[in-house]
Amino acid sequence: MKKVTILLVTLFMCSITFAQQALWGGEPIVSPEIHDDNTVTFRLRSPKAVKVEITGDFLAPQKVETDFGTFDVPGTAQLKEGANGVWEYTTPEPLASELYSYTFIVDGQRMNDPANVDMIRDVASITNIFIIPGNPGDLYSVKDIPHGTVARRWYDSPTLKEQRRITIYTPPGYENSKETYPVFYLLHGSGGDEEAWIALGRTAQILDNLIAQGKAKPMIVVMPNGHTQNVAAPTESFRQYKPAMGGGPREAVASMEDSFGDIIKFVESNYRVKKDKANRAIAGLSMGGMHSAAISAQYPNTFNYIGVFSAPPIASMMARNDSERAKYAEEFVKKLEVQKKNGYKLYWIACGDTDFLYQGVIDSMKKMDEIGFNYTYRESGEGHIWKNWRIYLSEFAPMLFK
Amino acid sequence: MKKVTILLVTLFMCSITFAQQALWGGEPIVSPEIHDDNTVTFRLRSPKAVKVEITGDFLAPQKVETDFGTFDVPGTAQLKEGANGVWEYTTPEPLASELYSYTFIVDGQRMNDPANVDMIRDVASITNIFIIPGNPGDLYSVKDIPHGTVARRWYDSPTLKEQRRITIYTPPGYENSKETYPVFYLLHGSGGDEEAWIALGRTAQILDNLIAQGKAKPMIVVMPNGHTQNVAAPTESFRQYKPAMGGGPREAVASMEDSFGDIIKFVESNYRVKKDKANRAIAGLSMGGMHSAAISAQYPNTFNYIGVFSAPPIASMMARNDSERAKYAEEFVKKLEVQKKNGYKLYWIACGDTDFLYQGVIDSMKKMDEIGFNYTYRESGEGHIWKNWRIYLSEFAPMLFK
Repeated sequence: MKKVTILLVTLFMCSITFAQQALWGGEPIVSPEIHDDNTVTFRLRSPKAVKVEITGDFLAPQKVETDFGTFDVPGTAQLKEGANGVWEYTTPEPLASELYSYTFIVDGQRMNDPANVDMIRDVASITNIFIIPGNPGDLYSVKDIPHGTVARRWYDSPTLKEQRRITIYTPPGYENSKETYPVFYLLHGSGGDEEAWIALGRTAQILDNLIAQGKAKPMIVVMPNGHTQNVAAPTESFRQYKPAMGGGPREAVASMEDSFGDIIKFVESNYRVKKDKANRAIAGLSMGGMHSAAISAQYPNTFNYIGVFSAPPIASMMARNDSERAKYAEEFVKKLEVQKKNGYKLYWIACGDTDFLYQGVIDSMKKMDEIGFNYTYRESGEGHIWKNWRIYLSEFAPMLFK
Repeated sequence: MKKVTILLVTLFMCSITFAQQALWGGEPIVSPEIHDDNTVTFRLRSPKAVKVEITGDFLAPQKVETDFGTFDVPGTAQLKEGANGVWEYTTPEPLASELYSYTFIVDGQRMNDPANVDMIRDVASITNIFIIPGNPGDLYSVKDIPHGTVARRWYDSPTLKEQRRITIYTPPGYENSKETYPVFYLLHGSGGDEEAWIALGRTAQILDNLIAQGKAKPMIVVMPNGHTQNVAAPTESFRQYKPAMGGGPREAVASMEDSFGDIIKFVESNYRVKKDKANRAIAGLSMGGMHSAAISAQYPNTFNYIGVFSAPPIASMMARNDSERAKYAEEFVKKLEVQKKNGYKLYWIACGDTDFLYQGVIDSMKKMDEIGFNYTYRESGEGHIWKNWRIYLSEFAPMLFK
């Protein structure tokens, strides 16, 4: 064996036996390359490929027909093969500031960009990401400012009769102060878990940045797992993960709504928090938005701030027909009457104008109008996507606890 | 748009536009399938592929020649195409209990298994994992036992003149006790970052399990980032990540050794810990093993427990020739004399018998023998791989603070 010259190089090479081949020789591939004018070039070395495409949310969406309706999915673009089997695609226009996700499709097979270390997991899929600086991209970026702490913990749920995993953001300075803090419960959608808001929602970055800019109050953000048939994200569970797909009986001991008291109790006995309605907020996206509406109605004197993102506040997730739906709505409106009587400071509903739930949101607000239930409505462009949920979080957090 | 029957299904479908196509139709692919006899079947739907291989550490390693010597890399096996473009490979023999990593190679291109949600990141690459139950696999699995908390925090390093990210495991019950705990500093290798021991090393699972079994004392485990030219893992940094590859000047304000006092100070002023030599341990793998030896020698009355995994304790990472190496060794031995005089409880050196650093470890121990420096040597099979580092951690942690 040849004598090593620089031990460090060797050590590194030995620990990356799975990493990209570029490290073993050949030109390093730069991908994505964000140019000064904010056009972006993507590159993939794939000498044997016949067709290389890219799909991502920076491309115009395509319509997909399914049994459940028509949905927007990210569009695709073709890469062109150049020298040495390196395929390339450059966006024809500069991209607006945003956090974008993408994957390559090589001869029909999805794969990540081996040249890009920035990846996030969305339940069962991993995509590469990149951020175009500016507004709102800077809000989603790690900056050289004071940082909060993100803890993954387990709490005991007597209602669900098991331990469950939970993600908790404490603001910068929490550990070295004697202050008590307000609490914001932030719930994921049906396709997520207790990692969703931190990974895809960029909660820690958004809160760190808003707090540093003096735009949001220092607060604790609590991100539980909203699927009560599971105890944790797929990779973190002590028993087999039960996918949410398929609907039907979810085989959970109790619902998110019925077991939510366990979470509040855990947080209020384990963190230095202000334990009153004025210092509790709850919001969520999609299924988590319905959870937020339902939980704040079920505990009608507990939250002063309610956020319902991309979801109708009045919607049963389990009703199977129109009569069940109507009955649920009727009972829910009665709960809203109580919530209205008790009072709250902000009921914030946000939805994209192409969201497949848009009409449901409009219908819910009509019912709320009928009983004079106050809310603030924020309509954005586009649909049921993380881009909107990051924007909603960035707008909602600054309104809390003021 | 067709009326939705089960809203939940729709919500889920909309949030997984990137996920595997199986969810949109077709037979779901099960991969990996662990059979009762612990043989494993891997499957990939890839109708257009010409050749599908799998590479992973459950396959016999291959030799790879490089300018720096010959290295073992995981072997490959061919999948066979069956009906509907589904490729399949079954291990000819049952696999021993272990945590294994793998990826597919489709026509020369590496890709993850879209049917397996268990994935871990190793700096720039993501691989799928699976665990064969038994011993030691069970030690690496999440069990229904009390769990510690894993926090990602930022600490201030006055020496490096910046904030840096750090991962900290606190044992079950830490938050609700008034006890003080011993501290174990656990350092990653040259190809890692502050996420390496948690993700690939399964530190939280190993400690949770060892503590639950009464085999290890409850302790705090501190996992800093060992590359002082960086502040955090690639995806978590506020400035461009500087790869360790290439050696040469690392452009850091100070070395890991010189800045380590900042970490101890941070931990001892932010956690309820026992602040004496009897309650401090330090260990690391590869580069982190060298760091552990160097740091414990540089602060020669600070640690009672030192673990050097897969690395020679006496080795300069920056020396460029034999004379520089000899000079470093000579000075290091003087430091070891002081460390010996001060005393310590355990100096544990572990190495695999095919490790490319094996001879360096033997040479170091010879030098230590010459000055009567006590150590315990644990030789395992195989080489410079996470399998060994998880085993070493599982064996080292039970010996601490007793």
